[in-house]
Amino acid sequence: MRASIVIAVALVVVGVSSTAAHAQTWQPPSDQQRCPSKWGATDERGAANHMKPETVLRAVRLMRTGEVFELGRVLSGSMPIQTTRTFELHTKRTAALLGSNRRGGNEEIVLAEIGQVGTQFDGFSHQTIGDSMYNCHKVDAIATRSGFTKLGIENVGTLMTRGVLIDVAALKGVAMLPDSYEVTVADLQQALGRQKLTLQPGDAVLVNTGWGQLWGKDNGRYMKVNPGLDVAAAEWLARQDPILVGADTAPINVTPSPDPQLSNPVHQIMLVINGIHLLENLKLDEVAAKQAYEFALIVQPLKIQGGTGSTVAPIAVR
Amino acid sequence: MRASIVIAVALVVVGVSSTAAHAQTWQPPSDQQRCPSKWGATDERGAANHMKPETVLRAVRLMRTGEVFELGRVLSGSMPIQTTRTFELHTKRTAALLGSNRRGGNEEIVLAEIGQVGTQFDGFSHQTIGDSMYNCHKVDAIATRSGFTKLGIENVGTLMTRGVLIDVAALKGVAMLPDSYEVTVADLQQALGRQKLTLQPGDAVLVNTGWGQLWGKDNGRYMKVNPGLDVAAAEWLARQDPILVGADTAPINVTPSPDPQLSNPVHQIMLVINGIHLLENLKLDEVAAKQAYEFALIVQPLKIQGGTGSTVAPIAVR
Amino acid sequence: MRASIVIAVALVVVGVSSTAAHAQTWQPPSDQQRCPSKWGATDERGAANHMKPETVLRAVRLMRTGEVFELGRVLSGSMPIQTTRTFELHTKRTAALLGSNRRGGNEEIVLAEIGQVGTQFDGFSHQTIGDSMYNCHKVDAIATRSGFTKLGIENVGTLMTRGVLIDVAALKGVAMLPDSYEVTVADLQQALGRQKLTLQPGDAVLVNTGWGQLWGKDNGRYMKVNPGLDVAAAEWLARQDPILVGADTAPINVTPSPDPQLSNPVHQIMLVINGIHLLENLKLDEVAAKQAYEFALIVQPLKIQGGTGSTVAPIAVR
Amino acid sequence: MRASIVIAVALVVVGVSSTAAHAQTWQPPSDQQRCPSKWGATDERGAANHMKPETVLRAVRLMRTGEVFELGRVLSGSMPIQTTRTFELHTKRTAALLGSNRRGGNEEIVLAEIGQVGTQFDGFSHQTIGDSMYNCHKVDAIATRSGFTKLGIENVGTLMTRGVLIDVAALKGVAMLPDSYEVTVADLQQALGRQKLTLQPGDAVLVNTGWGQLWGKDNGRYMKVNPGLDVAAAEWLARQDPILVGADTAPINVTPSPDPQLSNPVHQIMLVINGIHLLENLKLDEVAAKQAYEFALIVQPLKIQGGTGSTVAPIAVR
Repeated sequence: MRASIVIAVALVVVGVSSTAAHAQTWQPPSDQQRCPSKWGATDERGAANHMKPETVLRAVRLMRTGEVFELGRVLSGSMPIQTTRTFELHTKRTAALLGSNRRGGNEEIVLAEIGQVGTQFDGFSHQTIGDSMYNCHKVDAIATRSGFTKLGIENVGTLMTRGVLIDVAALKGVAMLPDSYEVTVADLQQALGRQKLTLQPGDAVLVNTGWGQLWGKDNGRYMKVNPGLDVAAAEWLARQDPILVGADTAPINVTPSPDPQLSNPVHQIMLVINGIHLLENLKLDEVAAKQAYEFALIVQPLKIQGGTGSTVAPIAVR
Repeated sequence: MRASIVIAVALVVVGVSSTAAHAQTWQPPSDQQRCPSKWGATDERGAANHMKPETVLRAVRLMRTGEVFELGRVLSGSMPIQTTRTFELHTKRTAALLGSNRRGGNEEIVLAEIGQVGTQFDGFSHQTIGDSMYNCHKVDAIATRSGFTKLGIENVGTLMTRGVLIDVAALKGVAMLPDSYEVTVADLQQALGRQKLTLQPGDAVLVNTGWGQLWGKDNGRYMKVNPGLDVAAAEWLARQDPILVGADTAPINVTPSPDPQLSNPVHQIMLVINGIHLLENLKLDEVAAKQAYEFALIVQPLKIQGGTGSTVAPIAVR
Repeated sequence: MRASIVIAVALVVVGVSSTAAHAQTWQPPSDQQRCPSKWGATDERGAANHMKPETVLRAVRLMRTGEVFELGRVLSGSMPIQTTRTFELHTKRTAALLGSNRRGGNEEIVLAEIGQVGTQFDGFSHQTIGDSMYNCHKVDAIATRSGFTKLGIENVGTLMTRGVLIDVAALKGVAMLPDSYEVTVADLQQALGRQKLTLQPGDAVLVNTGWGQLWGKDNGRYMKVNPGLDVAAAEWLARQDPILVGADTAPINVTPSPDPQLSNPVHQIMLVINGIHLLENLKLDEVAAKQAYEFALIVQPLKIQGGTGSTVAPIAVR
Repeated sequence: MRASIVIAVALVVVGVSSTAAHAQTWQPPSDQQRCPSKWGATDERGAANHMKPETVLRAVRLMRTGEVFELGRVLSGSMPIQTTRTFELHTKRTAALLGSNRRGGNEEIVLAEIGQVGTQFDGFSHQTIGDSMYNCHKVDAIATRSGFTKLGIENVGTLMTRGVLIDVAALKGVAMLPDSYEVTVADLQQALGRQKLTLQPGDAVLVNTGWGQLWGKDNGRYMKVNPGLDVAAAEWLARQDPILVGADTAPINVTPSPDPQLSNPVHQIMLVINGIHLLENLKLDEVAAKQAYEFALIVQPLKIQGGTGSTVAPIAVR
């Protein structure tokens, strides 16, 4: 098909080569292999345990000018969203004026998978390998009709740490990586080298693919496919011991999966196996444009009891 | 009634005198008197305009030890809530395992007045004087079925500034101010004097009444009445030019209103007249117990398009 | 435009002539002209007042074989629906087995404009002319945040009466009337003549356009345009004094309106001016195929307090 | 306890003797014992299969005067409801007037366990014995996030049949049976004898306890306890082969269960074992007061795909 050929040529020009051919088969470790987690058998916070006073102070030292970048998307009914999810807001206009001061009050009822829409912070009860979750909690043992009795997002609290943007799109010299481009370990390492930064344990690692520029402009394409991590890059990142991993895409992982037998293994690698939270649908255009590669990252997941995640509005400060 | 007498005696012992007798009649200023706001006729952010690099840096300088206090309550169906509001979470358990990696995904549908439940950040479209809101926007002109076209909470973004806790309960030597105790200007001034702090423009001012200790223990009493600000104290506070005002109660204002003709005038004074956001249902017990009276306050309202407010999970850091 | 010409030719072949050219300008009567309604100034039921014992008995006499036709569509997330409405069902699976008899209980939370989705019965609080509704009730006077204090659908109750299917598609010899075909008074009269039936006061009049065969097959087209009544046919039908008017389309009226200045005048003519309920999205294929033109129509709107309508599952029995 | 003694005396006076002492232990039959159901292994409608032309005609013959009794309760936020369920209606007022005819449209978003609130028709996916449902369908095999793939309420359709009111309250000479009164087989038989009626296969059997007079007056008591059937009466009724069983209480069964080890066995006997639908929270005061013991019962469950039940608004006609 002609259009495809043109794209392929363009890819060569910008030096991006498909790695789909290298996609390895992967299978998740057994419960015995992965539990208890390195944070202990009773732990529910995973890498969020990095959040300690020294982590905060490390972030504080990066805030030198007070410049703030909003990394959260506006939540609305017209944002990109999975077909199985919804975000509806119904205004409840004031019904009556109260008192001699004629006070009126408006509010809104919102119906949404509030933990899993918009810029969102994925918690550990969100994903499973079979019936088993982080620290090998079993779904049947901790699921109730109104949330999970373990691994709820209310355990996390504010994370404030050094944030590092790995700008893979800039490395490749493109505004946006191609559809379904698989970010490799080499890409991550070369981008860090180009940015003269190294990762440290407890960092919030954000990967810029440029895909976010489709947000609100071509929601269909934004949700259908996307560049991102696959198994090798995810496992390499997990070994760097970050507090969280984020990206300007819906799922962090490359879509579709290079190995069609696998369903989003990156979610399992991060959330189930390594206890590393994910931060999705980030707005990274400004930090990328200003080459703000190192900053304090602050994110406040809502304390939704038993929730699988939280929509959030994080910032980068430098 | 015997119980009342006992309470009255206790009040005298702890030196708290009722000020209800001094409650003045108040009437809101006219649109002509209050518009445009001091932030300009087209402004939608009010005192949130204090959020500038220097404000951030002022907050940064207060973060000396990296100690973090979570000020947000857990969101659950059993928290205190207005009878006209709801918070429901229905677990959507994984329906099928996907791929050879047997990936399962859980999420939850949440139904709530999400801007107005739990620890919450009140925006300007929340309140009116008659049909008129902050900067004299008229309800009919900006209300739609799915939010407000002006004054939506998405305009705010993260606020990060110096926070000051005014511990009125500690001033009075009580764990908790009495039911419907009206906090006076003198109370605020004396508490600040006792704490050796002065307010600065752009501060986040949090008032500790101790009432928060009822949260989850006696929700009925927590919601029925509460100590808090009335007209005089609110107007004095507004003149100090804070970025926001918060408390460990549902409405900030004293409940019921000392002047029974008035319906929560503090909401109008702050949100409608002065463009100062409110931060309600804070968890202030830890900062109060540790006498953490000055800190960096960080709060990230969700970017709900056209929303009247946002549930939040703020922190204090010092 | 070429496509239009082809369609026009097709219409001539099947004997359908466009009447869009005759579309008159129409303006709704003033409050003075239309109130009180013929059912009295305090009436909230309109033509549903036809529901009396003799009406029931008239229906009873038509039930001769006990043959039942289900006229209601299945309610699901994949049915045709307005973009501003939703139908979501979230299963609440049993969380625990109770008792020695190990009893489990499942249910579902449903989020929907339940009065206005699927096969639906429109009530009088659904529509306005300006701020004025049936019997000149004003929106501001009867609307609350949780329904209407007058004209709620709970006032209707079961309707059981003679039903007459007017099969305009059959008259025209087509399975389905063309897009945006305007059903004329002559069409209705000729179809009745062909069926050897006359209308009687209190009848439930159902118009078959054949459009319903798109339901679930081409939802986009089903909702975008449709054949139906316009002003003249609606006013003629209203003069026949039916208990309700229904069709196998979403809005009963032709879409788009032949006069582009008018927004669905048929809704105003029926609900606001004449107090005649509407029954939308009917499944009429079976009654049409079996030429069941006269039957007992039974419909049970839910008693939603203050509701604007009700999804329903009516039947025809003969 | 004094209050209990007084009640016991009152019971003797009105001739009601407690049968709690006779409460037998009961255990549900095994899958092998009860499957396939008498309606066949693939059946999903159970006793609703009685709905045939001759059943309709039998009902038709009972409609002699056209008198209609509404048996459905008004659905509102203030009705009695289980603590785990909700009914919320939020008005969506017209946001704009459309066209030169200034058309406005109101609707409402409703959040509810719509199959299980108000006057309701219980379907077969509502209840289980362990993980097994009617015709031994397993929960895991047919449950999805958005309903059940088998046994959904959309399979039922309108039921129209002879209805028989068994007025046990009238038999006992009381307006309302006592709290937790267990209706016995003898009660049912004696009441039928007093009413000079016999049950026939396919009847809709409605039991009047008088408990419905608490609806909207003492919702707390209405939901806490109630007179009703227990195992013996339910099994006897099931053997009469009715199309459905209903009552003027929330659960049909007596509450609490006389055998504290059992959790509502009547639901299992009817829905899981015998495939007989239940009709709850009926308004039976009028039919009871007018001694309308035999009538045509018409009920139209909504066609909620995969639903566990449906709120309904049934009628009795005679």
